[in-house]
Amino acid sequence: MREIKLNSRKWNSRHLEKEKKLEDVLKIFKGKIIPADKIVDVMENVIYPGNIVTLEGDNQKQASFLSRALLNVDRRKVNNLHMVMSNISRDEHLEIFKKGIASMLDFSYAGSQSVKVSNMLKEGSLKIGDVHTYLELYSRLFVDLIPDITLVAAEKADGEGNLYTGPNTEETSVLVEAAAFHDGIVIAQVNEIDNHLPRVDIPGSWVDFIVESDVPYDIDPLFTRDPAKINEVQILIAMMVIKGIYAKHHVLSLNHGIGYNTAAIELLLPTYGELLGLKGKICTNWVLNPHPTLIPAVESGWVKSVYSFGGELGMEKYVSSRSDVFFDGKDGSLRSNRVYAQMAGQYALDAFVGSTLQIDSMGNSSTVTEGRLSGFGGAPNMGSDSRGRRHSTEAWLDMAVCGGEIQKGRKLVIQTVETFKRGDNPVFVDKLDAVKVRSDSGLPITPVMIYGDDITHVVSEEGIAYLYKAQNLDERKKALAAIAGVTGPGLSITDDEVYALRRKGLVAYPEDIGIKRTDAKRSLLAAKDIEDLVQWSQGLYEPPAKFKNW
Amino acid sequence: MREIKLNSRKWNSRHLEKEKKLEDVLKIFKGKIIPADKIVDVMENVIYPGNIVTLEGDNQKQASFLSRALLNVDRRKVNNLHMVMSNISRDEHLEIFKKGIASMLDFSYAGSQSVKVSNMLKEGSLKIGDVHTYLELYSRLFVDLIPDITLVAAEKADGEGNLYTGPNTEETSVLVEAAAFHDGIVIAQVNEIDNHLPRVDIPGSWVDFIVESDVPYDIDPLFTRDPAKINEVQILIAMMVIKGIYAKHHVLSLNHGIGYNTAAIELLLPTYGELLGLKGKICTNWVLNPHPTLIPAVESGWVKSVYSFGGELGMEKYVSSRSDVFFDGKDGSLRSNRVYAQMAGQYALDAFVGSTLQIDSMGNSSTVTEGRLSGFGGAPNMGSDSRGRRHSTEAWLDMAVCGGEIQKGRKLVIQTVETFKRGDNPVFVDKLDAVKVRSDSGLPITPVMIYGDDITHVVSEEGIAYLYKAQNLDERKKALAAIAGVTGPGLSITDDEVYALRRKGLVAYPEDIGIKRTDAKRSLLAAKDIEDLVQWSQGLYEPPAKFKNW
Repeated sequence: MREIKLNSRKWNSRHLEKEKKLEDVLKIFKGKIIPADKIVDVMENVIYPGNIVTLEGDNQKQASFLSRALLNVDRRKVNNLHMVMSNISRDEHLEIFKKGIASMLDFSYAGSQSVKVSNMLKEGSLKIGDVHTYLELYSRLFVDLIPDITLVAAEKADGEGNLYTGPNTEETSVLVEAAAFHDGIVIAQVNEIDNHLPRVDIPGSWVDFIVESDVPYDIDPLFTRDPAKINEVQILIAMMVIKGIYAKHHVLSLNHGIGYNTAAIELLLPTYGELLGLKGKICTNWVLNPHPTLIPAVESGWVKSVYSFGGELGMEKYVSSRSDVFFDGKDGSLRSNRVYAQMAGQYALDAFVGSTLQIDSMGNSSTVTEGRLSGFGGAPNMGSDSRGRRHSTEAWLDMAVCGGEIQKGRKLVIQTVETFKRGDNPVFVDKLDAVKVRSDSGLPITPVMIYGDDITHVVSEEGIAYLYKAQNLDERKKALAAIAGVTGPGLSITDDEVYALRRKGLVAYPEDIGIKRTDAKRSLLAAKDIEDLVQWSQGLYEPPAKFKNW
Repeated sequence: MREIKLNSRKWNSRHLEKEKKLEDVLKIFKGKIIPADKIVDVMENVIYPGNIVTLEGDNQKQASFLSRALLNVDRRKVNNLHMVMSNISRDEHLEIFKKGIASMLDFSYAGSQSVKVSNMLKEGSLKIGDVHTYLELYSRLFVDLIPDITLVAAEKADGEGNLYTGPNTEETSVLVEAAAFHDGIVIAQVNEIDNHLPRVDIPGSWVDFIVESDVPYDIDPLFTRDPAKINEVQILIAMMVIKGIYAKHHVLSLNHGIGYNTAAIELLLPTYGELLGLKGKICTNWVLNPHPTLIPAVESGWVKSVYSFGGELGMEKYVSSRSDVFFDGKDGSLRSNRVYAQMAGQYALDAFVGSTLQIDSMGNSSTVTEGRLSGFGGAPNMGSDSRGRRHSTEAWLDMAVCGGEIQKGRKLVIQTVETFKRGDNPVFVDKLDAVKVRSDSGLPITPVMIYGDDITHVVSEEGIAYLYKAQNLDERKKALAAIAGVTGPGLSITDDEVYALRRKGLVAYPEDIGIKRTDAKRSLLAAKDIEDLVQWSQGLYEPPAKFKNW
């Protein structure tokens, strides 16, 4: 018999704590459905001080009933919560910190609340664990930020707690799974209780409580860009991307960021792309929310498939009527999934195309600017080389410039920028504002959205910098300067140097690839405004009121 | 009125094809439950020539009833299938190609079938789309390899098709989701039909058909390593990893590969780790299948959490009794998820520790050797720097050696190897066999498991090479040579050069970090054999018969 010290530790304390919480709730009501007026009372019983709480706040769908309820708990009972949230987008997301209900925050994206986040951090009314991309934050739910409580939103639930999310499944599945399978408590707000669900998105046995909210969850049409606002500089950039990048490298699968540059590309496919004879040769498989500006390309037969992170308001009927292209359930509505779309965006795509607010002389870019701690969202995940990737495509192999026996390809990571933003703000800068934001906020690293060595192409109205061809940092810097116009970095390069880069193929100006600047006209857009998009969709796209002017 | 060309294309052809298939099945039987003797008949009606078929073959759980059935279809009716499979591990996985039922293969890992894969590729009886990591393969299910048919395995189903997977959910969820939400057909084999499921892992509305198989699905205990087979060289390596890497960099979260090197580390934590006073300071949060060799560390209070890719035979009761550590459902059994575990393995961990068969002078490593096309599995995904990561930990920041305003950290990617493998095969080589396998098999890139520039540390019985400190390729090469013993690369370095590297901290020999080679004894192992593990587990671990000799 060997000497092995056996121990008598308790191994199910999470389980016992959950049982205790559920028993305490029984004193308030019985069953799975929380009466709406008891939600605060329930929260005060199931959320213990210091608990880790995930609160659904996708960049679109918001568990708004639950976040308001959380603001109303008695802070003597519920306090010092550690909030784990993909998005900080509503006032109460930060108010709970001011009231002391929560004290620690791990998040991904702050959008409209980014100035407040910065200020509260300075005041000390908020402590930040860290700023993440979406996939990182979800990953930590299974490692070192395992939730005690998950608060999510769905469209409908039945009496057993089965959830129907409709088009906006987004992050609901992953938030629920992490808590449900480690003795966390799952509460879902729903717009409606209905015992005949159109489909089941999340099994009822994963959900502890449902509550019917007084008003439907909040949701924003974040991915809608009005073609009327696209200007000719953006059209020129889009033409260069199509001809000088997509066609050159045979980009078949891709993700577009949200922005007018990428909306312009989508709207040029059925016109300029068609002229170049590119249909079926580029841009066939997408990971993308249902952008309304993609409608003309879909209708013209350019698009084989679109897999989505989330839905888009107004696109419901259109998506349902195009089930060969979009993913949907038996009920005919979109099935989205933020984790799988990010995973596919990282590992299965030829290209990611984004935009940024600042790009430094080495190619590092950031949307974090003075006074704003906006976070990352999902862009760095897709806008970086997936070093774990091992399968090939033509575009991916095309990025392998250095030969040898052990070469591999790279994902195309493309930034499209105008040399100046509104006002007089140069996009090409010597130093990112993010460097100062880092030191002001005490972040451990500078919040860079995409690192210079991950970027393969930058496109401005001046031309394309083929950064993947640069042999060293100096060449990368020069290629960027050549398309940086009259900004600081742009003025650092001589005409002779630019000419040499163009000859070497490190830089292309529009004329080098047969594009006339004067051809970049709004008349090239397949749709000139929202009304055109509706028409292209045969009336199936139903834009939210704020986009309608007819 | 603008001129917009509207089209009248059919947009629901996938939906109509699925409806047609379901109608044809109605001629064979009605309802959701396929009579076992009708499975071939059903397959002949729902699988069309050229269809994309995913067949569950995790590295553990196998949809073996369905794979055998597929081998029995009439090839005049079902042929030229495009198989998408994470694992090729059973004879019939390749027999379907020999019979012409399938013609194209996209896969991740071939294990025991790797020689056959190579041979069939040469003969031309098999075409390979590409070789992937798991996450890449799953990603493509949503982009350009969207399945028409998914064949999976579960433990139980109820009459509505709700699935209970027990501990081995593994990849079932993702395979089902990709098909269910794009008009694919989902067929699940189950060991038992039971209208009172212990829990629901996959909603019934995602599943078209279930079939009760004649024998339970096949499953292998792939992650069990018998401590009796751990030798003193492996113990020495494990001591160096614990003291020279985990303690030095404060590695809290990690994944271990399967191998005796990593099993030795797990078994040294409660002994050697305890002596060094490291409990609570390293190795607290794991992404790992329930390795039996982790039991002593769990029992000694080292382990806060373990999130698993899949289950492990014999560990069911132990896992259920340690629910504070492992993830489980309301039924008390493990919930695993291959996608989420790989995602967490990529994005939320300080370190990945693996082993390899060959490592070249630049640090590139591969398990692909002459005549074997074994594929990648999940290692490259975790064994690479996650360039999309933006949150920090102490260990991750410790890898940032070059300063500056834009620095970031890195994941620790550690390879542990003995300088020679069984027989007289050097692990350190000048050129990987994989280079020849590439040219023989016509692969577009050399099948490298982990690239040299992703590796931060290599440990052999000679010492540790801290590759993340190397300023250039030459320094990396020299640091590797310094621990390569009497292999080709090892003989290329002089004693003076080694001494200089040790002084600079690029290399540490055991004596440099206070480890006596003679202390590396089997008596240090917390468990010496399987019986000890059972004892540590208080009888809860029930090893499969083949591991029992008492």
